[in-house]
Amino acid sequence: MFSRRNFLRVSGLSAVPAIAPLDQFAAQFSADPPSDFVRFSGDGPMYQPDQFIAKLQEISKAQSIKWDFYGKGGSIDELTKKFTALTGKEAAIYLASGTLANQLAISVLSGENTKVFVQETSHVYRDEADAAQSVYGKRLIPLAAGKTYFTLEELQKSIEEHSQGEAFKSGIGAVSIENPVRRCDGTFVPLDEIKRISAFCREKGYKLHLDGARIYLASAYAGTSVAEYASYFDTVYISLYKYLGAAGGAILCGPKEIIDRMDHLAKIHGGVIFMNWANAAMALHHLNGIEDRFKRVATQSKQLFALLNQLPGLTIMAIDKGTNISNAQLAPTVNAYKLGEILWDKYRIALPGINPNGEMKLMVNDSLLSRDNNQIVAAFKDALALAKA
Amino acid sequence: MFSRRNFLRVSGLSAVPAIAPLDQFAAQFSADPPSDFVRFSGDGPMYQPDQFIAKLQEISKAQSIKWDFYGKGGSIDELTKKFTALTGKEAAIYLASGTLANQLAISVLSGENTKVFVQETSHVYRDEADAAQSVYGKRLIPLAAGKTYFTLEELQKSIEEHSQGEAFKSGIGAVSIENPVRRCDGTFVPLDEIKRISAFCREKGYKLHLDGARIYLASAYAGTSVAEYASYFDTVYISLYKYLGAAGGAILCGPKEIIDRMDHLAKIHGGVIFMNWANAAMALHHLNGIEDRFKRVATQSKQLFALLNQLPGLTIMAIDKGTNISNAQLAPTVNAYKLGEILWDKYRIALPGINPNGEMKLMVNDSLLSRDNNQIVAAFKDALALAKA
Amino acid sequence: MFSRRNFLRVSGLSAVPAIAPLDQFAAQFSADPPSDFVRFSGDGPMYQPDQFIAKLQEISKAQSIKWDFYGKGGSIDELTKKFTALTGKEAAIYLASGTLANQLAISVLSGENTKVFVQETSHVYRDEADAAQSVYGKRLIPLAAGKTYFTLEELQKSIEEHSQGEAFKSGIGAVSIENPVRRCDGTFVPLDEIKRISAFCREKGYKLHLDGARIYLASAYAGTSVAEYASYFDTVYISLYKYLGAAGGAILCGPKEIIDRMDHLAKIHGGVIFMNWANAAMALHHLNGIEDRFKRVATQSKQLFALLNQLPGLTIMAIDKGTNISNAQLAPTVNAYKLGEILWDKYRIALPGINPNGEMKLMVNDSLLSRDNNQIVAAFKDALALAKA
Amino acid sequence: MFSRRNFLRVSGLSAVPAIAPLDQFAAQFSADPPSDFVRFSGDGPMYQPDQFIAKLQEISKAQSIKWDFYGKGGSIDELTKKFTALTGKEAAIYLASGTLANQLAISVLSGENTKVFVQETSHVYRDEADAAQSVYGKRLIPLAAGKTYFTLEELQKSIEEHSQGEAFKSGIGAVSIENPVRRCDGTFVPLDEIKRISAFCREKGYKLHLDGARIYLASAYAGTSVAEYASYFDTVYISLYKYLGAAGGAILCGPKEIIDRMDHLAKIHGGVIFMNWANAAMALHHLNGIEDRFKRVATQSKQLFALLNQLPGLTIMAIDKGTNISNAQLAPTVNAYKLGEILWDKYRIALPGINPNGEMKLMVNDSLLSRDNNQIVAAFKDALALAKA
Repeated sequence: MFSRRNFLRVSGLSAVPAIAPLDQFAAQFSADPPSDFVRFSGDGPMYQPDQFIAKLQEISKAQSIKWDFYGKGGSIDELTKKFTALTGKEAAIYLASGTLANQLAISVLSGENTKVFVQETSHVYRDEADAAQSVYGKRLIPLAAGKTYFTLEELQKSIEEHSQGEAFKSGIGAVSIENPVRRCDGTFVPLDEIKRISAFCREKGYKLHLDGARIYLASAYAGTSVAEYASYFDTVYISLYKYLGAAGGAILCGPKEIIDRMDHLAKIHGGVIFMNWANAAMALHHLNGIEDRFKRVATQSKQLFALLNQLPGLTIMAIDKGTNISNAQLAPTVNAYKLGEILWDKYRIALPGINPNGEMKLMVNDSLLSRDNNQIVAAFKDALALAKA
Repeated sequence: MFSRRNFLRVSGLSAVPAIAPLDQFAAQFSADPPSDFVRFSGDGPMYQPDQFIAKLQEISKAQSIKWDFYGKGGSIDELTKKFTALTGKEAAIYLASGTLANQLAISVLSGENTKVFVQETSHVYRDEADAAQSVYGKRLIPLAAGKTYFTLEELQKSIEEHSQGEAFKSGIGAVSIENPVRRCDGTFVPLDEIKRISAFCREKGYKLHLDGARIYLASAYAGTSVAEYASYFDTVYISLYKYLGAAGGAILCGPKEIIDRMDHLAKIHGGVIFMNWANAAMALHHLNGIEDRFKRVATQSKQLFALLNQLPGLTIMAIDKGTNISNAQLAPTVNAYKLGEILWDKYRIALPGINPNGEMKLMVNDSLLSRDNNQIVAAFKDALALAKA
Repeated sequence: MFSRRNFLRVSGLSAVPAIAPLDQFAAQFSADPPSDFVRFSGDGPMYQPDQFIAKLQEISKAQSIKWDFYGKGGSIDELTKKFTALTGKEAAIYLASGTLANQLAISVLSGENTKVFVQETSHVYRDEADAAQSVYGKRLIPLAAGKTYFTLEELQKSIEEHSQGEAFKSGIGAVSIENPVRRCDGTFVPLDEIKRISAFCREKGYKLHLDGARIYLASAYAGTSVAEYASYFDTVYISLYKYLGAAGGAILCGPKEIIDRMDHLAKIHGGVIFMNWANAAMALHHLNGIEDRFKRVATQSKQLFALLNQLPGLTIMAIDKGTNISNAQLAPTVNAYKLGEILWDKYRIALPGINPNGEMKLMVNDSLLSRDNNQIVAAFKDALALAKA
Repeated sequence: MFSRRNFLRVSGLSAVPAIAPLDQFAAQFSADPPSDFVRFSGDGPMYQPDQFIAKLQEISKAQSIKWDFYGKGGSIDELTKKFTALTGKEAAIYLASGTLANQLAISVLSGENTKVFVQETSHVYRDEADAAQSVYGKRLIPLAAGKTYFTLEELQKSIEEHSQGEAFKSGIGAVSIENPVRRCDGTFVPLDEIKRISAFCREKGYKLHLDGARIYLASAYAGTSVAEYASYFDTVYISLYKYLGAAGGAILCGPKEIIDRMDHLAKIHGGVIFMNWANAAMALHHLNGIEDRFKRVATQSKQLFALLNQLPGLTIMAIDKGTNISNAQLAPTVNAYKLGEILWDKYRIALPGINPNGEMKLMVNDSLLSRDNNQIVAAFKDALALAKA
């Protein structure tokens, strides 16, 4: 139906091994998926077209959806209002894509200055097709290669090196931080480090952007709020199709004077779409209680993994500063293929890809909340017992 | 609900007077519009959210809609295939907006050359926020100010003047033609002129782009096919939310080597959206029989207007090289407000805005096909009789 | 030695007919030109290499020339100081070319706004190879086609049309005025019109740039000062190789905060040259008394032409709002070729090109000051008498 | 007279300690320098204005200098011809600055592709004010941090990582190599490594640019020719004010179809200067015998340093793959200040800056050829004996 490899590629899901001995992926994304199942993969609900339409109709029946024109008015206004409340920012705008949101934010925050500091592992650096350089004339300077975050000292050192070590006085533009970091198994940047970096940037006049595509993960697992994370940044981008059920779209929040410039910039880059109320309605619906929901996912999954770790044949290891992803290891005595098959066929529990060494990345999301931990543990217990290698 | 003035502005609907003594506009676009009515305004069906959802569900039930990822696969592939068939071009791509489609086409066709020749009345020149200059580094040279089209001689003269009258050898990029021209009451560019311009451009190596947002209007009223119009151009853009019912989106058709470059360019400009199957499904549905449907609209409206012109109090005047727009004049004896009210309340026929002089722009579209001409004439006869000033 | 046609082309000397029956041009620019002659063409002294070196040595001997590094320090600082005094502006910078000066000024003054209003006849519009659009992302809107200047009303009308007649709120950047206008036979923009335009722009917040490559011509012939002209503009560009003897270079004057940004911009465009003291020294030398010198040229040439007009066979017609260029007509009885030959061989007076109808553009410059009017008149009298057709 | 610190900064002379106990720098660059002295610093002759003028006059007297117009014709044509002969390339163009030459070459060679691989220590990466990103939309990817060169394997690894590790298929543009590398004490890139990289790039279709600002150093010390080095690259830039005595300017050599596009690009970036014959004449003069001259400098300096190393108090250490720079260490018993003073006052030998540890970077250039090694050794012997700490 579509190239999974390419999907993984553009989604940054590099953590999933390319060749999995067992994979419910196809089943989950089949034309006729089961409506209620627990998924240990994916960024929240990913509705098939007919499910999407049904969901939209359900939403529409509960309360009439108001249309927008070119991303203004109606449900889009409701959505931006909800996001300013969530993030505590002055203003918000709907944009067609996360790339557009990140790039416009960084570009406008930087003004005439060229140098923008980013994580080497960030979406902005690795997955936006060099838009920063080729379209916006910015020089991205990657920090913390292969790691979740850079420290204040690493940022300061790089700024110093680029200011002193080059012939022309450096124009320092913005600093951008992705949190949590998809290419680092969803680990989050510690709030304390963000506070220090933010204080430094404000003192120096450097602007700070948050790529918070999945920010509620970071806030839930770090035990803080989206608003607190957002407060340390000038602008914040949040995706509408991660955990919010939309078919696309992004929200950029920030100071009014910054956000007010975005509409024109989106237009000239061809990113103003005629109507966007469907994405707004889906996101509005899924935003209800999102912070609370992810707190529950965090708590429940922790308990679940503790229980599952008591079962023979499966070991789940939390990732330091991790959010919804954990490493899991199957014992050599377990037949991975059978395990996945039984969990799916009998219990409608979908495992992620498992590599030949029996390793997998367990990703939790709100589908977990639809089932009791005891039921899930019982399912695994049964399946592990049956799936002897 | 939304600013009609701004909507008209960005839609290029300048023909509609800003202050209308009578206006079913609000009614037509109300939250609860009647499902079946004849509209003498608008660019085809403009579904309210609940209507849109219902339509989509109807489509989905008839045949399962296949999703796309980032504008590739599933229903998007069906759509691009349909458009290559419609236009006779080698390849097609889904893009987020008409502005993106026009600008990328012009930019890629022009290569390193700066000068691009356009109609002064065109969307590219007037309604794309200077994207050509500010984002793509092109110099748009407007021809035929206030008019529908430029002739080959006017194009040649301008090329000559810009090549000879400037100090540096002119880099001639592309020529872009909008057809039909929205800012000129939907009039079309004669096929013969296009043939001559096309032959000249091919001889000289200048590339030619067609902004055919509403191209089926031009082909239906000029008595030719979309494919014939398209054959004279290198690239063709067609809108998905004019007459095709989508909530947004555009198709760009052309040679494979040109179209193949668009995906990357769309990405760096932030114009690649996660999922687009809803627009694809709506457009696929409405594309069925579109050429035939518009031929019937052309025929039926011609007959209708001939009949209406026999009624006292209303004169309808065809526009030379016009498509779906005609000028209409109410006699001073007709109370325009009452006329509109009666037609709407009693017959569900919606008139466009009427200015204080009793003038209006009658726009026909496929809603005409849902009613018999005799019924419409009878309705007007009754309403005109009752609406004495 | 070099292509005269190309030289004329890039110099904007379109007034000189391409085919002249008589032309001292080659002689004037020969490898071994006479050192002292009166030229009725050209933009002031144009030194052959050996003359240039000799002149530079003479200057250096009078006072040691101080070198600069990358356009800063030494004689460049002296030069910029002199230009701030001449123009009354806060700051000045040396730039490599007039194109760089014009384009950077317009770009920085416009900020994020796209639309820039210029004369259709201006160098910025016609002779800078579309740099505004292709490099700086600006949209030049040409006014007053074929004419020396636009009026305030024409400017206002165009701003209004572009603000109202386009779908997106117009971003009005800068207004640029060339004065005098080379493509209009050196005619100048009336001071009163500039005052009105300047007052309007300041009220509206639009920035105003003066392309004053040859500004001393305008001020001398309009009877005002460079400083007065400059006072109505935000930035002023003046060429160093028109009348100032340099081999290249430009000065841009304006507010400190604008000028301070130029160095970095010049660098990234590759326009920062290692050493520039030779151009600075030549310009400093020729700047001495330049305003007074051009006043004398204006007075003396007026008297000269009155005297020449009393001779049979030659009619000289002043151009309205003209500066150093006048139209001249030879009677059919005069052999143009012989006339030029005699004036040159016997009197070292160089005529410009003369077209087959006996028309020529007489250009005066400081070479006029080296000879007494009576001597020149006597020379013409003799030559006209001998050069019977 | 000028800020030495800034000069060193923009010249990339970071090797010279900022605070030197002894410095003939001021003397060397004073308004009245001695005409004949041996300098152990600097990039060849750096003429004071009066010396420059005198030299130019001498050149002009030997053979009349022919002027150019806007970088075309006359002595510029002679110069480009000489450079095509020197490098073996098809075509050459005069450009205003090295930054312009490097940036235009990289930009044109890369076409639409974004990624350009460079040394982290290179001028292109560190000293061109982010022009590649901000003006030309390229992403420079630095290799071999802190080192002279990257190996083929390092280049391949980086290309692989950037192609595989990012979501969007990488557009690989050009590879640029600086040789010798100023920021690495003038060390050169081994010819064998260049051959391997060149073969790989040609196989893959990646274009290769040589920043050969001081290429004759590399060729002389590596024992090969400029032409051989050049043969492995598509384009080659050579500076006119390093060792060639010009006051500015650069030459870019390469295939005709590439070079032919430069004139227009230089124009739109404001880099086309009216006349440039002075730089051409100086460069032409100093180009005579340059390859041979540097071979002699290499030989003579090697012998000289061997002799000097026999003197007590001074140790000179060759740098691996070094060209004209060697590290030198004074014994603690030597008074650096006195040593410099004596060498200068008595022998007109200028040392570079010496740091508080008695370390200095000895740079040789053609001024060495004006004195016999024995004379220099005798001078050092005397000075070292007198300069006891």
